[in-house]
Amino acid sequence: MEQFEIHILGCGSALPTTRHNASSQVIRIGNKQFMIDCGEGTQRELRKQHIHFSFINHIFISHLHGDHCFGLIGLISTFGLLGRTAPLHIYADSKLEELMKPQIEFFCNGMHYPIFFHNIDCSKREIIFEDNTITVESVPLKHRLATCGFIFREKPKQRHLIGEAVNFYNIPTYMRQAIKDGADYTTPDGDVIPNSRLTKDADPSRSYAYCSDTAPCPENCEYLKDVDLLYHEATFADSEKERAAQTFHSTARQAAEIARGSNAKKLLIGHYSSRYETLDTLLDEAKEVFPNTICAMEGVTVTI
Amino acid sequence: MEQFEIHILGCGSALPTTRHNASSQVIRIGNKQFMIDCGEGTQRELRKQHIHFSFINHIFISHLHGDHCFGLIGLISTFGLLGRTAPLHIYADSKLEELMKPQIEFFCNGMHYPIFFHNIDCSKREIIFEDNTITVESVPLKHRLATCGFIFREKPKQRHLIGEAVNFYNIPTYMRQAIKDGADYTTPDGDVIPNSRLTKDADPSRSYAYCSDTAPCPENCEYLKDVDLLYHEATFADSEKERAAQTFHSTARQAAEIARGSNAKKLLIGHYSSRYETLDTLLDEAKEVFPNTICAMEGVTVTI
Repeated sequence: MEQFEIHILGCGSALPTTRHNASSQVIRIGNKQFMIDCGEGTQRELRKQHIHFSFINHIFISHLHGDHCFGLIGLISTFGLLGRTAPLHIYADSKLEELMKPQIEFFCNGMHYPIFFHNIDCSKREIIFEDNTITVESVPLKHRLATCGFIFREKPKQRHLIGEAVNFYNIPTYMRQAIKDGADYTTPDGDVIPNSRLTKDADPSRSYAYCSDTAPCPENCEYLKDVDLLYHEATFADSEKERAAQTFHSTARQAAEIARGSNAKKLLIGHYSSRYETLDTLLDEAKEVFPNTICAMEGVTVTI
Repeated sequence: MEQFEIHILGCGSALPTTRHNASSQVIRIGNKQFMIDCGEGTQRELRKQHIHFSFINHIFISHLHGDHCFGLIGLISTFGLLGRTAPLHIYADSKLEELMKPQIEFFCNGMHYPIFFHNIDCSKREIIFEDNTITVESVPLKHRLATCGFIFREKPKQRHLIGEAVNFYNIPTYMRQAIKDGADYTTPDGDVIPNSRLTKDADPSRSYAYCSDTAPCPENCEYLKDVDLLYHEATFADSEKERAAQTFHSTARQAAEIARGSNAKKLLIGHYSSRYETLDTLLDEAKEVFPNTICAMEGVTVTI
């Protein structure tokens, strides 16, 4: 199977610490790379993790708090300095374009690549990106300003041809595509060979959901149902539950409840408040509800 | 003597590397802290070096290239999150205010401290900041857009009273200030005691100059004359002299020539191109012209 990897570039929250960067991730699916959020310091972390800048063509911004987008102007500027020519697509609340345009005009004039801003309506769940193999859906979240999560889903894949059967029936090349798509094969003699004897099951279509920043949204569990990996913010521990509610964030336990309610296969927590010097408490509290929980950390790659 | 220290937060140039941050320094003079330039990642480096955010009240921006100012919005935002109430003064080309205002309005609303932008005319040499003990002058530089350097100078200090003489002549308290300022003392009997018998020389007034980014400006040497420490950009080695000229940068050797021409006591080079994995060549070439040269490096503090 193609790789489906989440590279954690930053999993801290608003206040800077030496332990974490502000939010950013690169999602690598096969030879495609997508970025989610772009806090300050993201481009340096890309260098540190040896991730090629030039393969990033789509950047999804969950919401317009600084710790999720202050690294964007630096990244855009660096793309220009590196001689980029490929278009860059940015998906975000429309306010971002308004804020970025004057900066891009001033700081990046003479750049040789176009930037397209795509407006996300954070109140709706809809497909905001689609290509031949994947879709990206927006999921409304509950934060202090318009915020959405993202679900990356692989489209259904083709069945695998069984080499021996293809040779045995001498199936012509031009018919193989239809068989991969599920067709039976009719021999020159008129015999119908059922698809199940010619193919093996397709690889599963994997999925990844990113929910940050947000208060718990149990109403999203049906959209997140059976997701392979759920990244959910876990800014606070139980002891700060009240503060979490006030600031429209989640506790690690609440993140775990969303994972359990969604029947996610694995939970990845992040967006840690700067008050936590270690992550033990957050991890322990999440695991009490959802044992298959891991902690995001800069430099960590999670494979789906 | 009070401390006069330069803290290097970043001394790389435009392209991000894992070796250097973009430009930023904190100048600490006594209990005052000034910042020069604020590239992306500056606030994280402040944390790393345990420099208190709240003591920074004046930020000087040399020019509006991203590697000298992209960290500003994050720092301003963090000041707000930390509950700052003290005014912040930013000295820069007027375009910066125009670019920052909409961002500050959107990202930092509800902040409890005022920000004052002070327009620098980079074509002029003038005093842009002054308090009871220091002045900051702008110095026009030659770059691809309006750029200026900064000279921090301690004002002349008071002479030191000689304790034994003060006691011997029983000089009243109210007269001591005038004597520190250079006055002679007339005894009740009408004898005039010359100041030189009552005081020792004042501590020297120290100075620091920051020149980045710039092509060599020998015409500035008279302004920089006898400066205690000169920070001068040294983006390139001799082998890239042509490229330095094209991009309005300096080689390490040219930086050293400015230091020699200014009769600076010490030269600190920085703003290294990302192509240099080590600094040996840059340092060697500078030292051939000006032996008392050192290399800036993140985390290094230079004491004057």
